[in-house]
Formats: sequence, structure tokens, C-alpha cells
Amino acid sequence: MSLLVIGSVAFDAIETPFGKTDKIIGGAATYISLSASYYKKPLNLVAVVGGDFPKSDIMLLQQHGVDTLGLQIKENEKSFFWAGKYHNDMNSRDTLVTELNVLGTFDPVIPEAYQDCKYLMLGNLAPKVQSTVINRLRKRPKLIVMDTMNFWMDIAYDDLMETLSMVDVLTINDEEARQLSKEYSLVKAAKKILAMGPKYLIIKKGEHGALLFNQEKVFFAPALPLEEVFDPTGAGDTFAGGFIGYIANHDDISFETMKNAIIYGSAMASFCVEKFGTERLINLSENQIARRVQDFIDLVQFEIKL
Amino acid sequence: MSLLVIGSVAFDAIETPFGKTDKIIGGAATYISLSASYYKKPLNLVAVVGGDFPKSDIMLLQQHGVDTLGLQIKENEKSFFWAGKYHNDMNSRDTLVTELNVLGTFDPVIPEAYQDCKYLMLGNLAPKVQSTVINRLRKRPKLIVMDTMNFWMDIAYDDLMETLSMVDVLTINDEEARQLSKEYSLVKAAKKILAMGPKYLIIKKGEHGALLFNQEKVFFAPALPLEEVFDPTGAGDTFAGGFIGYIANHDDISFETMKNAIIYGSAMASFCVEKFGTERLINLSENQIARRVQDFIDLVQFEIKL
Repeated sequence: MSLLVIGSVAFDAIETPFGKTDKIIGGAATYISLSASYYKKPLNLVAVVGGDFPKSDIMLLQQHGVDTLGLQIKENEKSFFWAGKYHNDMNSRDTLVTELNVLGTFDPVIPEAYQDCKYLMLGNLAPKVQSTVINRLRKRPKLIVMDTMNFWMDIAYDDLMETLSMVDVLTINDEEARQLSKEYSLVKAAKKILAMGPKYLIIKKGEHGALLFNQEKVFFAPALPLEEVFDPTGAGDTFAGGFIGYIANHDDISFETMKNAIIYGSAMASFCVEKFGTERLINLSENQIARRVQDFIDLVQFEIKL
Repeated sequence: MSLLVIGSVAFDAIETPFGKTDKIIGGAATYISLSASYYKKPLNLVAVVGGDFPKSDIMLLQQHGVDTLGLQIKENEKSFFWAGKYHNDMNSRDTLVTELNVLGTFDPVIPEAYQDCKYLMLGNLAPKVQSTVINRLRKRPKLIVMDTMNFWMDIAYDDLMETLSMVDVLTINDEEARQLSKEYSLVKAAKKILAMGPKYLIIKKGEHGALLFNQEKVFFAPALPLEEVFDPTGAGDTFAGGFIGYIANHDDISFETMKNAIIYGSAMASFCVEKFGTERLINLSENQIARRVQDFIDLVQFEIKL
């Protein structure tokens, strides 16, 4: 029942109204892995970093049960680097720097030991790289979850469509769902996107929660109302990590299990935004997670007898 | 256990991407009353219209169990008139015309028969008019719910603060909560607003649902994801009407009952936006409402055993 995570492992430099960081560990696969590690260990990682990536950060992942056999280290190159600055509302941000570096030529090699992959999480990457991973797995995983972003809709639409046709679950945000479907209504957008291939669609609405669609049903999970969002970086990836980790742990892909997985993913995301970068995801206890999930239950559950 | 509704009864002219209307019946108290009428009959109305207001529209209210003894008709004056045009996203609108007419000098006279008021719903009006109603009731109602808008924060702040200190529940939208509290975080905004007087605060987030706060607890109700929002006019008032109607019907003001009332209010609002103006609120069946509430249950309920 192995879980395989693909995506960027990188440096981020983040500025929010609350402060700024130097280069810290970031990247979609980092957040996904740390979050999923609370539900499923070990998990396998395929990613690439440069020689500048600290051994201590790789050890951090290993300490969370991440197998790094599939983490390529290109000694003479530099790691992917992103710098961004959030506006006061924390809902919009400017990208200040994007240095692809090792990611520009990333060839996702799957170690033989990872071929037993049952659950595959494709973090945001070029869709061509994502489909290459699927094609290099000799046996199709039980569930393939894919994250993407508007950037690929703009510059790699055909690749994106091809990869979309190969996956089971797509996670994107509301604006991206609208762009991809050319529909403003998220219900209409979901219908169109489900016709592109995925059997399930998760639309992430940030502070407004998340929607899960399949052809027949829809489920909504709120975001936890927070006093302060300190740093939203990685929240979507952390959500995806909790989602796939919960599903892999329960080894069940029913709609009911996906609903619970979305609650757990939302709980993990609510931790992520409380501190800079991955800081809040490092030392969570089972008790803390259970209490946070209880907060979600208290937030939305009601008793109406019809 | 009488329910008293105060607010505007008026003409609206609405333009959306789907079409436009001539002058049709509108106004906060109209939507509130029609919506509440599905839960609590009869209900009492204090409002004012001009001689131009059609008898057929007054009969429409009466047919829904609205007592119109408190509806003043100023034969030689004109009814309040609002015209607005919604943008393509349906989330923003331009006001094209606002003619206060009879509303400019509205003196809310409470008929003696309405003095037994147990539940009072103050629809959006000048805060001074709202507080006048409270002061003219000899016995304080069991629950006073007040709606307001940013306009009064701008031009009648002191009056608004005074009225706020007299009510139990305030309903406002997210932008108004931020303006009133000068806090971006809705959790922080809620704390500040609850310190202004109300024991409960409902923050309406339109397509993103609604939050109910008291000092200790928070509850979230989603909006139903809809294929099409045809006309959002009156959705907030319809929500408030379902909320107060449900509470008056159950004669209980516990947090648990308020949670259910918010789901029923949300269900009523989801009907309201499906057609122009009040059209969808005219002939709903108990079955239709029950099915819609079931949609809300299906949308958010999940089973996690901690």
C-alpha cells in the first residue's frame, strides 16, 4: 500500500505582513510529504534538488518517515527557488523571484522499490513530468491525485489535458477551475472538468473551504475560521498531503472516505498557515490533530430531523 | 409568540446578465416576511408604502399570512424605489436609482395588537428607526434580530452603535463586518462586534455561506452550490426571514436551535436566487423545503469517529 509523492522540493523566501524569511525549505512535495507523513509511513518521494540543498532539510523529511531514495541531488546545480510577497488581505501575492534551476530539466526517475505504488500524489509540476511518472509505473496505482495551477493552463494546455485524462482526482483552486472550464458557476465548472477525465474534482477555495465533486454528489468542507493567517504558503499542498495520506492509510477510495480525507486535509492546512513555511507541520501530536478535527466537527455539524 | 417584522416594502427594478424587470415588489421586509411565513403564521408587519403600491401586492403578503394592520399607506406619496444592475460575476452590483420617498419620513407606529411581540426582526433601515421600534414596545421581546448595512456605518455611526447595544443578534455581510470592526480576520471582527452589544453575530458570506458566533462558539453553514444564480436580490433578507421564522416557530433561542435556523435560512436563500425578485418564494411546498434542507445535510455531514 505504498504512497508515492512527486513534486518540487525547493527553497522559498516569503514575505507577509507579519515578517519575512530567508531561504527556507519549501516546495509542493515537501508540504505534501510532511502533511501525509502524519497518516502514512513510510512514503516515497520522487523529486530533485541541487547541491545547495541542506542535508539537514533532507534529514527533516527522513525523520518524518519520507523515503528519499527517489530524491535526486544534482551536486553542481541549484535548487528551485521561489520568492513571494503576500498582500495585506493574505489572499493575493506577488511572485518576486522564480528560479527553476534543477526543476527545468527534471526527469522523474522511479526507483524500482517504488514500483509497488498504490497511491500516487502528483504535486504541482509541468503536466508532461506528471504524465511521465504515470507512464513509468508498470502497474497503474489504485488512485492518482493530481494538483496543478493556472500557469500550466496558459503555457502547456495540451499536455495538461493529456495528463488530466489519466488521473482520478484533480485538485485546483476556484479561480483555476473557472479558467479551465470557462464557467463562472463552480457547479457548471465541475461538470465540464469531470468530463475531461478525473472522476473526482476538489475545488479549493482557501479561507472559504473546499468542494468535492463526482458525477452524482457534492461535499463541502469549510476552512476553520482563524484569528490570524500568518503565512498561507503551502496550505493547498498541505491539504492535498492530508487528503492522500488519510486515504492511503485507510486504503479505501469511496466517496465517504474522501469526505473524511478532506476534513483531515483541511485540518492540516489550518495548522500550516499558523506559522511561516513548514514550521507548524514539524511537530504535531496525534492529540493536536484530533482536537483540530473536533473543531471542524463542532463547526459544521447540526441535528435536523426531517 | 408573535413575530414582528420591520423594514422596507418597496419597488425594485433589477437587471442581471439574465434579463431585467420592471418595477416589482421588493424591500427587506417583503423578503423577510415571505420567507418567515413558511415557518410562522400569522406574522405582523410594520412598514410604509405610497399610494402607488398595488393592492395585489399587499394581498400577496396577506395570502402568506402576513398581518398588514401595521402597514401604513401614504396615499399621496410614492413607495421606496431601488434600481440596480448586477455585474457578470453576480457578486457586485451598481445602484442605478434610490428614491427614498415614503421611507424618508417613516415613523414606525406599532399597533396595539402587536405589543405582544416575542420575536422582533429589524430589517435594514435607518438605525434610529430600528431603535424607535424597540423603544415603542412596552415589553422587551425575547429575541431581537437586526440587519444593517455599510451605508449606516458611513452616515449614522452613533445611531448604529446605540441600536446595536439594544439587540440580541446582528446579521451583516463579511465586508460590513470588516468595516464595522476594522479587522480583516472575521474571527477578530466577531469578537469586536460582540463587544458592541449583540450576543450573537451572523456574518453572511453570500455564495461562501454564513458564520454564527457567540462568545464561546462558532458555527458555519455553507451556501448550496448552484448551477446558476439568477438574481441575488433579497437573498440576505430571505435568509434572515427563514432564520427568525424557524426560531419563532420553535420558540427556542439556544445556540443549537440557531444553528438549525441558519440552515433553514440558507435553504430559503437558495430558493430566492433561482428566479427574479420574490418569484421563487411565492409557492414553495413543505416537501420542496424539506428536500432542500436535505441537500444541505448531504452537502456537509460526514462521519468521523475520534
